[in-house]
Amino acid sequence: MIELYYQNGLIPVVVQDAETREVLMVAWADEKAVSLTQKTGYAHYYSRSRKKIWKKGEESGHLQRVLQIRTDCDADTLLYLVSQSGAACHLGYRSCFFRTLDGHVLFERMTDPEMVYK
Amino acid sequence: MIELYYQNGLIPVVVQDAETREVLMVAWADEKAVSLTQKTGYAHYYSRSRKKIWKKGEESGHLQRVLQIRTDCDADTLLYLVSQSGAACHLGYRSCFFRTLDGHVLFERMTDPEMVYK
Repeated sequence: MIELYYQNGLIPVVVQDAETREVLMVAWADEKAVSLTQKTGYAHYYSRSRKKIWKKGEESGHLQRVLQIRTDCDADTLLYLVSQSGAACHLGYRSCFFRTLDGHVLFERMTDPEMVYK
Repeated sequence: MIELYYQNGLIPVVVQDAETREVLMVAWADEKAVSLTQKTGYAHYYSRSRKKIWKKGEESGHLQRVLQIRTDCDADTLLYLVSQSGAACHLGYRSCFFRTLDGHVLFERMTDPEMVYK
């Protein structure tokens, strides 16, 4: 097990769909969230705004089954290869990276976020 | 042009090979590095250790031609789709994410880093 470098207790996690290879999102994890992810096989993150660990999909049902965890050369970033249920993005898109920097939307919405989050 | 949210002047950038869809690396950019990337079409980042902007490949020749820039739902992360010359990783691997968290190396080295960096 490679020793990870956490910055202020957190490490960024890039999440990639293992099948389509699409980059779905980037989130942050603390040591406990990484450990919960390894133990359960489902992605857990640390919310910097809510200051707590959350399980991806706990509310929406859009779980991420983590098939492989990689780290980079500097061991300060993680890459999760996942099997994504439903939309990764809380706005209903399959990926959070659904638009270009100049605002062009690249994908259709998969779900209506108002139907998923109350 | 979408307004980006920089944290302490920096935004994380996920770099993906546009052809193979492999996640190559994660780096940080400040506003000037993003602007230089847009202007030149080649990836520029901000080094937190050296406290300066660097052009990817300026020493190694392993340039990244940026084909598309995306941002995520929160506009606090960027995704660069690139055409990568040579190895993205300074250790000579095509991707910085060349190993699993338990230390299993997934790829062969492409280049000998000692031949690239003096």
